[in-house]
Amino acid sequence: MSTLSRLSQSTVEAPISFLMREALARPELISLAAGFVDQASLPLAETLRAADELLASSARGRAALQYSTTMGDGAVREILLNRLLEADGLPSGSRSIEQVIMTAGSNELLYQLGLVLLDREDIVLCAAPSYFVFLGALRGMGAHAFGLPVDASGVIPEVLEKVLQKARAEGNSNRIKALYLTTYFDNPSSITTSTERREEIFEIVSRHNHQHHQLYIIEDAAYRDLRYFGKDLPSLLSLDRQHKTVIHTSSFSKSFSPGLRVGWGVLPKDLITALSNHQGNMNFGAPHFSQQIILQVVQAGDFDLHLTKLRLTYQQKLETMTAAANKYLGDLSEVTWLPAEGGLYIWMRLAGINTGTEGPLFSRALEKGVLYVPGCYCYPSAGDPPAHDRLRLSFGVQSLERIAQGMQLLAEAIRETLAQKEPQY
Amino acid sequence: MSTLSRLSQSTVEAPISFLMREALARPELISLAAGFVDQASLPLAETLRAADELLASSARGRAALQYSTTMGDGAVREILLNRLLEADGLPSGSRSIEQVIMTAGSNELLYQLGLVLLDREDIVLCAAPSYFVFLGALRGMGAHAFGLPVDASGVIPEVLEKVLQKARAEGNSNRIKALYLTTYFDNPSSITTSTERREEIFEIVSRHNHQHHQLYIIEDAAYRDLRYFGKDLPSLLSLDRQHKTVIHTSSFSKSFSPGLRVGWGVLPKDLITALSNHQGNMNFGAPHFSQQIILQVVQAGDFDLHLTKLRLTYQQKLETMTAAANKYLGDLSEVTWLPAEGGLYIWMRLAGINTGTEGPLFSRALEKGVLYVPGCYCYPSAGDPPAHDRLRLSFGVQSLERIAQGMQLLAEAIRETLAQKEPQY
Repeated sequence: MSTLSRLSQSTVEAPISFLMREALARPELISLAAGFVDQASLPLAETLRAADELLASSARGRAALQYSTTMGDGAVREILLNRLLEADGLPSGSRSIEQVIMTAGSNELLYQLGLVLLDREDIVLCAAPSYFVFLGALRGMGAHAFGLPVDASGVIPEVLEKVLQKARAEGNSNRIKALYLTTYFDNPSSITTSTERREEIFEIVSRHNHQHHQLYIIEDAAYRDLRYFGKDLPSLLSLDRQHKTVIHTSSFSKSFSPGLRVGWGVLPKDLITALSNHQGNMNFGAPHFSQQIILQVVQAGDFDLHLTKLRLTYQQKLETMTAAANKYLGDLSEVTWLPAEGGLYIWMRLAGINTGTEGPLFSRALEKGVLYVPGCYCYPSAGDPPAHDRLRLSFGVQSLERIAQGMQLLAEAIRETLAQKEPQY
Repeated sequence: MSTLSRLSQSTVEAPISFLMREALARPELISLAAGFVDQASLPLAETLRAADELLASSARGRAALQYSTTMGDGAVREILLNRLLEADGLPSGSRSIEQVIMTAGSNELLYQLGLVLLDREDIVLCAAPSYFVFLGALRGMGAHAFGLPVDASGVIPEVLEKVLQKARAEGNSNRIKALYLTTYFDNPSSITTSTERREEIFEIVSRHNHQHHQLYIIEDAAYRDLRYFGKDLPSLLSLDRQHKTVIHTSSFSKSFSPGLRVGWGVLPKDLITALSNHQGNMNFGAPHFSQQIILQVVQAGDFDLHLTKLRLTYQQKLETMTAAANKYLGDLSEVTWLPAEGGLYIWMRLAGINTGTEGPLFSRALEKGVLYVPGCYCYPSAGDPPAHDRLRLSFGVQSLERIAQGMQLLAEAIRETLAQKEPQY
């Protein structure tokens, strides 16, 4: 009998940590693997101005250095909720700030939702592929992630309907606690769930909900602010007029600074107490000082100005990566990718090539000096099976030059792999 | 079947939250209940200087705004470890910084230790009384806190020995995963475990450990820096030369600022991977920006200067509370308290008075305008039974005047309750 808990025994290192170590050990490598944000555009001046402003007032400054309330500072929660309602075209006051929770990044909120909703053997439905850190967290908790197939508009409603019907027929539907969806620029697929699809999904889930069992939708909107093309869409949350079904999670890690650790969410009314009690046991809430920095930059207008600049930065990076992909790989019928309107990733298919670390491409790419995330890391353990011919490319971290250069090296590795001609799997 | 997990169903609001709401609703109340820190001495100038210094360098500033590594920034971990080794009289290098983890306050580390070590029905031994937030967390996880009796030097070794022997005889010892001890100025009792007692406890636990089961000691040292009288003692960790048994947790929440959320710990080598993997799933680690602020204030010497001033502030508050207790209650044989050499609390016994919220004292004190924490909140669910005649008084938050005034009001309530003469329980 181990001294460690079952949770700990099934909690493993994120697969991508191995890639990070590789990148650290060989600084000459061009890592298109890490999901970090662009270093040069981190908001140094904005944060300095906010800290100076905040600490110049002894009342505000001291309050920021004291404990916050467990759910988070009231003024921060109010301003974030109002911005969200405005973006969704809803009247101010249509949701209560009691429903807003501040957490140390949205990942911490996802983790807490897992603890608060899931017992061992419970099921979370999700897109296949999905955000692998959350998949790892579910695995640690002994829950099952069940993957639903996607097309360019998001999870396919008919399959969702079938899965829920089957579970009901088998008397198993109470085990399905949530549907997890990154509705804007999914990590890794970059897919944004279309408005029509949002409505279909919400309708299906609502129809399957009943008095004795609530199936929640966890809407991960971490990348919503990072749109470079096209028009913003109302959130899935905005469809939930009864405040019962959708949990909305968001973050300043991608749009401002991950080092501050400020994420937040909007909870259905029935979950407020559960999350508040849990966070009260765990860590008393998100760092208050960081919450106040965010409040200050938002109030001062610095956040929106920063976001405008940041979007241009990432747009250029995305265009550079796409242009390089077209230039070096455009003639290959085996190579396709979904167009990305935002986010930090390109999700590429290489028909006939096993992209895994044991496959022929990964080691060849490494030899040439470029790293990517094998797509198979991003698939749930059950449901729609993993595709072994995908890879995730991040354009967030590297400079324009290194992105182009990395894509050129990757293309060489792909061409050499294809030239081998042997079937890979 | 509820949609909530078993963990969530057994996670309740901290009992003291009710007291906090009472205090907020009636600002004229003198709360000697909250464990918050002194507002006026929060380090405004020190934090401002550190933020300016940090953000003046674009390399350091941007790094602070980026993700840290999961275990925490290397330079912070190194400086904290070296300070600890120095305080314990151990040579630098006698522990590895790989063993150091940064967390968002030490409470978050305690919570993670619970998740990583405990399955439902597992047992944690602890002092009776103990820190009630951790007791609540254990309850949420479905684990049992088993209380060991204490005297003025800490947990009584003979009882610890007996409990472990009994568990072994009953084939139950694998269920006992940890002994939780706040070894400096315990919350709520203010007891510091004596050096001799530390050695006895460590010897007993080591003797009961064997190849197939490791019983850990969680040493909570959150209050170590807050000593106002007497000499610092080496940590229990310092006895663990094999890096196998003692988990040491510490924090800047009491000694500098709770709003930054910086805690840290030293792990036995066998637990490094488990905690790192878990924190990687949960929130990617403590806020990097806050870690860098702490690094800066420690390196600049501002932390030590601040601590010197802070100790004087709290020493005065402790002396004021003790003087008022002597003045207003010193003649009553029913009223006794342990002398406190540090920390933030006085733990008082009122023989013959039920101090609970349903008892006669609590409502009378509230009428007079003073709040305290009923002692019964601080007892584990099993083991040494709760004492119903204790109360915790915090001197951290209130001014000297309000402390004296609060004690006078409390003394009136106590005298009136005693004058009723009827047996209370």
